[in-house]
Amino acid sequence: TGVATMKFKSPPVNSLSLDFLTEFSISLEKLENDRACRGVIFTSAVPKIFSSGLDITEMCGKSTEHYAEFWRAVQEMWLRLYGSNMVTVAAVNGSSPAGGCLIALSCDYRIMVENPKFSIGLNEAQLGIVAPFWFKDTFVNIVGHRVAERSLQLGSLHPAPEAHKFGLVDELVPEEKLQEKAAAVMAQWLALPDHARQLTKSMMRKAVLDRLVAHREEDIQNFISFISKESIQKSLRMYMEMLKKKKS
Amino acid sequence: TGVATMKFKSPPVNSLSLDFLTEFSISLEKLENDRACRGVIFTSAVPKIFSSGLDITEMCGKSTEHYAEFWRAVQEMWLRLYGSNMVTVAAVNGSSPAGGCLIALSCDYRIMVENPKFSIGLNEAQLGIVAPFWFKDTFVNIVGHRVAERSLQLGSLHPAPEAHKFGLVDELVPEEKLQEKAAAVMAQWLALPDHARQLTKSMMRKAVLDRLVAHREEDIQNFISFISKESIQKSLRMYMEMLKKKKS
Amino acid sequence: TGVATMKFKSPPVNSLSLDFLTEFSISLEKLENDRACRGVIFTSAVPKIFSSGLDITEMCGKSTEHYAEFWRAVQEMWLRLYGSNMVTVAAVNGSSPAGGCLIALSCDYRIMVENPKFSIGLNEAQLGIVAPFWFKDTFVNIVGHRVAERSLQLGSLHPAPEAHKFGLVDELVPEEKLQEKAAAVMAQWLALPDHARQLTKSMMRKAVLDRLVAHREEDIQNFISFISKESIQKSLRMYMEMLKKKKS
Repeated sequence: TGVATMKFKSPPVNSLSLDFLTEFSISLEKLENDRACRGVIFTSAVPKIFSSGLDITEMCGKSTEHYAEFWRAVQEMWLRLYGSNMVTVAAVNGSSPAGGCLIALSCDYRIMVENPKFSIGLNEAQLGIVAPFWFKDTFVNIVGHRVAERSLQLGSLHPAPEAHKFGLVDELVPEEKLQEKAAAVMAQWLALPDHARQLTKSMMRKAVLDRLVAHREEDIQNFISFISKESIQKSLRMYMEMLKKKKS
Repeated sequence: TGVATMKFKSPPVNSLSLDFLTEFSISLEKLENDRACRGVIFTSAVPKIFSSGLDITEMCGKSTEHYAEFWRAVQEMWLRLYGSNMVTVAAVNGSSPAGGCLIALSCDYRIMVENPKFSIGLNEAQLGIVAPFWFKDTFVNIVGHRVAERSLQLGSLHPAPEAHKFGLVDELVPEEKLQEKAAAVMAQWLALPDHARQLTKSMMRKAVLDRLVAHREEDIQNFISFISKESIQKSLRMYMEMLKKKKS
Repeated sequence: TGVATMKFKSPPVNSLSLDFLTEFSISLEKLENDRACRGVIFTSAVPKIFSSGLDITEMCGKSTEHYAEFWRAVQEMWLRLYGSNMVTVAAVNGSSPAGGCLIALSCDYRIMVENPKFSIGLNEAQLGIVAPFWFKDTFVNIVGHRVAERSLQLGSLHPAPEAHKFGLVDELVPEEKLQEKAAAVMAQWLALPDHARQLTKSMMRKAVLDRLVAHREEDIQNFISFISKESIQKSLRMYMEMLKKKKS
């Protein structure tokens, strides 16, 4: 059918580790170069979670070189996904904070399970960190400036119905209908001639993609100097402690 | 009353031929220079259609010189309409795809007949072609980035009620009330002092107008090289065949 | 609690005179430099009016030097408020035209009394004047391009329920609940770590702030040459006469 499904399977929470990101980018590149593949559906094989976002262990107590390598992999993932020529549909079957939300935001269409226990948002501010400008640009393109400003400042995680209300997700469906719906949406998008659709997508996204390409090294340096601060390291360690306690 | 009505009467579907565009621009320029005229209502004298958009016969099997002349006329029409100092109201009394939609988008206010059989949208992608960047800019100004991106990629034609829901048209009325409503809206806008209103309008639209002015020749060259491709010519010919069959 | 309240008390209508603006900026600067203060609530001590906007007497029949001083004070107020590191909440307990609306727009969150007799908007065009580009930029960031364009051209004053419908205010409450609600919202925002929230806010607002900073002197000269026109002076005098008659 020309449609691939990329199913995240990195328990317990599909966090975006360096390995995960590298595999993601390589897989996407392969599909991009495969002329038989015209669309990709992203979903999770882990119950209740789409992706928990960037792996905090990659940002804690590591070397400058590691931070640089990690951040470059995050950029690479987004540049490939937001700039993909394929039709990309996020089938969000669980919570999707921070980097998980970014993956959904970067697709062409977002379908989420209507369960209000599942939430989505760029909640970086809750952890004492700041979403990078290209997360912000992607978010503003989807929900507009006012909603993005408030949501980013508050680090909000929006329950699925609320996220739907202001357009952060395009559609809600019962969990058992999700894959069927994703396939139907994909078929609708693939009915269009590829070439015109790809040029249109690129016209819409080029400005935001170009901004990161033009400032990529600077963005890596910013990340390193921010994440290396003792105050930030401390709040990330506290956050990890909290997560561990929650689990046990 | 200081209000002109420009009634499109180019059967069967008010397509924007080189002649139509030239007459449109000349008429608009005359009204612009007529100090007695402060506002224009655009509507159709052809039943069920506002305007079907750019005339495909002008883009098929013609010379490079013809394509250049045609495209310059399309640009001219939009530069005059989007940049008009007059109050412009679209009274959309029929379907309005592609270039027809652009005319409506470029007005200050859009009223559409509430008939769900009438649809409106930038459906270029359906034909295998790409809406130019200034169509896109005008569209994004009206419906925002997310809706514009999806609608342009899918080449969607939105039934009037759907178009109203996301702001592509400002108001729906029964067909028999359309002209009355357009006149009432016009009166409301003309109650404002012209000078302040004109400066405000220009402030809002200048960035998007300037972008085309700065890239006008480049945009013509882009159009020529795109439209001259054999693959594009072929899909336009197929589209015209389909339209002919539909008619008979 | 780390929260200050700035209560406008300049009867009869809290108009933004040179004195008011100067005091506003000085107070805000003091709070900004006070590490104990993390948030400010703006509200009015004058019944039925939040602020009537720029004081027209400062723009009528005065010297060029006065106009320059006045306009610089308007800019200063906005630069400090829109660029504030503190959490800013507008508790709008009365009508709020023009410059009054700008104060509300520049806060992080807007709560308005649900009374439909109270209205809010940038109504400059009604007076025959034009909202400056940075009023416009702030407005577009809140309500988007389409709504801003129409509202600015018509100089609309929106009753509270209408303003809420398109996001010009974030929330409506009964008058007796306003201060309580403002305090609750403030507490929610102050639950976030300051540093990440401030960097996020600055990332969202920097482009618009920088535009005025880069064109500040030019903007002052524009104001002076516009306001000095005899036609503008005349329409401001007429407007003041109308206000006087209304009062008596």
